[in-house]
Amino acid sequence: MEKWIVKTNKCTSELIAHNGNKFLIGNGYFGLRGTLEEHTKAHMCAINLAGIYDKAGDSWRESVNAPNVLHTVAKFDNETYILPENSPILHEQKLDFYNALHSRTTSWKTKKGVVTINSERFASMKRQHIICVKFTVCADYDCRAEIKTGIDGDVWDINGPHFAEILTKYEDKIKYVTGITGEKGISVTSCEYVTGDFECESNTECHKDSVFETLIFDIKANREYSFTKICAVYTSADENKFDDEIKSFTYEQLKKEHADTWHQIWNISEVEIIGDDEAMHNLNYSIYHLNCIAPRNLSSMSIPARGLSGQVYKGAVFWDTEMFMIDYFLHTEPQIAKTLIKYRIDTLDGARIKAKEYGLDGAYYAWESQEGGFEACSDYNVTDVFTKRPMRTHFRDKQYHVSAAVVYAICKYIEATGDISFLVDGGAEVIIECARMYRSLLIKKADNPYYEIHDVVGPDEYHERVNNNAYTNRMAKLVFDTAIDTINILKEKYEDCYIELDAKYNFETLMHIFKDSSKNIYIPQPDERNLIEQFDGYFNLEDVSVDTVRSRLLDPKEYWGGAYGVASQTQVIKQADVVAMLGIFSNEYENEILENNFRYYEPRTEHGSSLSACMYSLLSCKIGNSEIAYPFFMKSASADLCTGGKEWAGLIYIGGTHPASEGGAWIVAIKGFAGITARDGKLCCNPCLPKKWQSMRFKFKYLNKLYQIKIDKKTGTITEI
Amino acid sequence: MEKWIVKTNKCTSELIAHNGNKFLIGNGYFGLRGTLEEHTKAHMCAINLAGIYDKAGDSWRESVNAPNVLHTVAKFDNETYILPENSPILHEQKLDFYNALHSRTTSWKTKKGVVTINSERFASMKRQHIICVKFTVCADYDCRAEIKTGIDGDVWDINGPHFAEILTKYEDKIKYVTGITGEKGISVTSCEYVTGDFECESNTECHKDSVFETLIFDIKANREYSFTKICAVYTSADENKFDDEIKSFTYEQLKKEHADTWHQIWNISEVEIIGDDEAMHNLNYSIYHLNCIAPRNLSSMSIPARGLSGQVYKGAVFWDTEMFMIDYFLHTEPQIAKTLIKYRIDTLDGARIKAKEYGLDGAYYAWESQEGGFEACSDYNVTDVFTKRPMRTHFRDKQYHVSAAVVYAICKYIEATGDISFLVDGGAEVIIECARMYRSLLIKKADNPYYEIHDVVGPDEYHERVNNNAYTNRMAKLVFDTAIDTINILKEKYEDCYIELDAKYNFETLMHIFKDSSKNIYIPQPDERNLIEQFDGYFNLEDVSVDTVRSRLLDPKEYWGGAYGVASQTQVIKQADVVAMLGIFSNEYENEILENNFRYYEPRTEHGSSLSACMYSLLSCKIGNSEIAYPFFMKSASADLCTGGKEWAGLIYIGGTHPASEGGAWIVAIKGFAGITARDGKLCCNPCLPKKWQSMRFKFKYLNKLYQIKIDKKTGTITEI
Repeated sequence: MEKWIVKTNKCTSELIAHNGNKFLIGNGYFGLRGTLEEHTKAHMCAINLAGIYDKAGDSWRESVNAPNVLHTVAKFDNETYILPENSPILHEQKLDFYNALHSRTTSWKTKKGVVTINSERFASMKRQHIICVKFTVCADYDCRAEIKTGIDGDVWDINGPHFAEILTKYEDKIKYVTGITGEKGISVTSCEYVTGDFECESNTECHKDSVFETLIFDIKANREYSFTKICAVYTSADENKFDDEIKSFTYEQLKKEHADTWHQIWNISEVEIIGDDEAMHNLNYSIYHLNCIAPRNLSSMSIPARGLSGQVYKGAVFWDTEMFMIDYFLHTEPQIAKTLIKYRIDTLDGARIKAKEYGLDGAYYAWESQEGGFEACSDYNVTDVFTKRPMRTHFRDKQYHVSAAVVYAICKYIEATGDISFLVDGGAEVIIECARMYRSLLIKKADNPYYEIHDVVGPDEYHERVNNNAYTNRMAKLVFDTAIDTINILKEKYEDCYIELDAKYNFETLMHIFKDSSKNIYIPQPDERNLIEQFDGYFNLEDVSVDTVRSRLLDPKEYWGGAYGVASQTQVIKQADVVAMLGIFSNEYENEILENNFRYYEPRTEHGSSLSACMYSLLSCKIGNSEIAYPFFMKSASADLCTGGKEWAGLIYIGGTHPASEGGAWIVAIKGFAGITARDGKLCCNPCLPKKWQSMRFKFKYLNKLYQIKIDKKTGTITEI
Repeated sequence: MEKWIVKTNKCTSELIAHNGNKFLIGNGYFGLRGTLEEHTKAHMCAINLAGIYDKAGDSWRESVNAPNVLHTVAKFDNETYILPENSPILHEQKLDFYNALHSRTTSWKTKKGVVTINSERFASMKRQHIICVKFTVCADYDCRAEIKTGIDGDVWDINGPHFAEILTKYEDKIKYVTGITGEKGISVTSCEYVTGDFECESNTECHKDSVFETLIFDIKANREYSFTKICAVYTSADENKFDDEIKSFTYEQLKKEHADTWHQIWNISEVEIIGDDEAMHNLNYSIYHLNCIAPRNLSSMSIPARGLSGQVYKGAVFWDTEMFMIDYFLHTEPQIAKTLIKYRIDTLDGARIKAKEYGLDGAYYAWESQEGGFEACSDYNVTDVFTKRPMRTHFRDKQYHVSAAVVYAICKYIEATGDISFLVDGGAEVIIECARMYRSLLIKKADNPYYEIHDVVGPDEYHERVNNNAYTNRMAKLVFDTAIDTINILKEKYEDCYIELDAKYNFETLMHIFKDSSKNIYIPQPDERNLIEQFDGYFNLEDVSVDTVRSRLLDPKEYWGGAYGVASQTQVIKQADVVAMLGIFSNEYENEILENNFRYYEPRTEHGSSLSACMYSLLSCKIGNSEIAYPFFMKSASADLCTGGKEWAGLIYIGGTHPASEGGAWIVAIKGFAGITARDGKLCCNPCLPKKWQSMRFKFKYLNKLYQIKIDKKTGTITEI
């Protein structure tokens, strides 16, 4: 395994989707799937745009893919050579994730000899609209080459087509393809400027939805012929346009500034692990993905659950960001964490609308949030494999814990940055509105003194409509407590804001009801076995193994959850639930309780969500068992490196990158193995390294200071730099 | 149509199940399906026993069928003649329901002429263990007959076999077949004594599970040869045995006393309708069924939902008895009504156990109640047609309204008989325990002043786990109010009982919480359209027609309800729900509200339950529209006369007789069309006769008095006799 390099020699039909994720490049403005130049929408090519959404017909609303600027097909002596159709004699697809460079080399045997194509590409981290491609051909005999390259507006969509209209143009040597989205009329333009280092005949034609140029030239044996494509992608939502500007750069200039920008990022974010190259490789690869999709240079944007790897999960933002991704940014680039939270502040109105829809007070954040907080989650989010009918699911209406995740992220942000002024800038209102939402969920049985929350879906989505989910109830209490603290802080430090919000909410009453709620909410407690029941009645469900449940599947794509899924009436759960709660509130429980619950729930967990492994791993570290933690960590860090991830929920395709898993891997490495705690102004470490790991070295930001941290087997040194 | 006669000339394979129900005879101790003598378990022959249950292996617990005493097969010149295999030249199966006599005549053409068999049977209403059969053969040419007759222990079971052991015996000319049930070792014996009016050779053999006698004799042309079978059925749960006793009767004696007993019953229960013979016929046929299955001569027994027509619905007792059947008995034979309620009093402990199982106080009656109140309803009560898997349904755990039905029946009993001493004999405790159960269902949202009931299944079972079902909430209030009244009555009139129960329950506290519950429970009110919403959110469901919903079925046997059924997310309902509530509490609502709700809900009702039509019919009468009511009444009164009833719920067979529908028909006739109200000691009528009906005449018991009632178009006369 080369350091910083991911590569493959295979490009089969089965692997194209996987490689599209594994070799993704991106810069937060878009993600560019790791498909090859000759590929089309059939191969799931995508320049997936952050924050741009469209709804086509009755289909699900989803993110939009820009016209594809990569498309290039080479002919030698009038024969086309493409993958996977034409078997190569040599092929390598490579990602240098230190420099964020994608490249490929492929050679084919022809009747007369060997022809080779090379390409290199990057998504400029310095200039977030720019994509650069360098394409090189070569043959070991004289022949005639014909290269077709340009922009393909016939893009891959899951629920499209999103372009109601496509405009094409070739002007001043720049090709343009502009799609106009059907729902809101947003124009999405891809343009490119091609220059070569050789003489050739060139014809450019504008088609209905594409512009292609054909370069025709004679190849001399063993000479390389290269051309570059400087491309830009922008939308009508952007202030800037990129017309002639793309002519003013050279490929090498752009490549250098791109690499420099990445080196600066790596200077803060690289994690060194001495003694375990594979773990180091996979962890930094995970960090690479987080950096590819981080909304840099923006003030209000979040990250979708499948990153920018396509339209899966509608390109929507889930709790994944707040629970699993934000920690990495908080301690490397806190400005990005702020941007992520700002997205939630700016979408508070969307959350208020959703709360109202369900007869609740305050703010109920979208389970699948698009721009403006629009709830993209359908009531029918899974398709039944047997009847092909949409199934009524409860992700949208019952997964109340999403609002708590937003509040929890604000807590983490303030804790990590000390930036309590953030409360004044909308943070306080989000917290208060979420607390009001949870208050309106509370019910009391006629003769019971405590509050309960009924009819919810917890993190373990296989069990729908349960009562007193431990995770949900405990997180609701966190929200009440945070709201109480917030009102106190405002009163003490931000009088203007206090007065303004008090006029709106009446803080005296709110303080009273939040205190009542926090004090009287029922939190499931450890039983005589030290076990916390995931929800009322969970322990009465059939206690069978994950394998037994799996063996009951009649169809491999069948949904495990819902009313009648194979897991629904058993104790088999999709992902960490009680364990997630214990991970967050581990300091409230004895070690024995943490351990017993881990031991009980882990064998009953399918880990059917990429969010699960890191939760279990983190709790193992807290228990002090790095050997149990290690394989979960590796699973989490390798989510996009290995094949075999879950790609179907019923008949819905759910493949793509897994940034929450990658963020989770970072959390485990830093907060688990290195044992970093950053609380109340103090930075400490309590290492629990896996056997192989001799030491770790990484940087860490906390309260506006940057620290160099070195962790050994038993101790660590934390140095401000 | 002959008065008191139901007949058919058809005996095809498709009709055998239907005819088994239609031609049923019975006497409350057992029901004897209307199959033919040559039939076996493949034709669903059954002597279905009241109150005897068994569980075989992992299958559902169900009622037990006794060894079949009917089995008789005739050969003429060594050729067998049976239906439906051998096409007859003449066939008639007939039920004379005035005399409760079943008969059949079938003639076949043979090579030499015509042979005929006749049989007549009855289930003695005078002696409840006795079945009598008279079998006659005849030919229009000389031939040799060979008749095999006896007792077949290889009985039809849905979830059997229930006989773990079968004993056979032939002693003193009596054949015995005794099955020993596997679960509780109950012995079920059928025995018979055969006598003929002719000389013949006779051989009797005991087999493993049957005893058969073969009668061989020469037939003279056109002479009839008859033999009779005097049979008895008894179990180890009975005090009496019937051994030699059956030899002491003659067929004609038994037939006469049987008919006399029925004539006495008809003397009270017949309803005459002048101007509509068909309605009169069908209504009296319905009454016949109620009389066939009434637990006469017992002090504590109820009636299963499918009567005694077999093992469908596990031979269990549903709310059907209290809501739809008991009214007929209350006003014709109140002693039977008392027996039905006594069953609920005696099974209070079963209901307590069930309440405890669900963490509730008090008594939660079984949805499908067997002996001792044992809950026979499975959590998986429907089989998915697509996966063949059992579906998790909520009949058992969420259909709380069953306890209210028991209390409502007690109210009706006291109202009809004036027998408030019944409260002391267990009635009061049932009421209090049911009220305690409903109290423990009440929840209050944190900032709401009123109580709600969440997560229930109302009468409309297609919508599971709904909140604030109008019917359930209103019935809960009725239970609270009844409990309050009951405590007051005890205090006033039955001091000993008051003191005893007060010591157990603390009446001061109970009075306080029942009053609080009654006052503060949320009862959905008519909206601006005068409509009452069936449950929270019902009006937001897709509003499509029953036909549209039906057209979405992929399989005709598919279940409409549950989480993903075709009706579940629509406003299409299975049966009367709001309309059922309005029928019970019609005096609390303006006529306009009754009418608007009828008009709204009726077109949205599939009437997928036989309990539905009579509810709609009754409400139409209360609105004053007998023409709308009439077809629903006829549907209700003809439930077992017509083919085309619903015979499947998913893959579960649910065919059988429909006593609730029959009881409902009586309610509509008497309380709807005749408009009889019997409240607070006063008997009144407010006729609303269908157009055709010139007048009605019937008897009616109320407060220990018997009345002759004559209803004309506009008025009625009520005369005590």
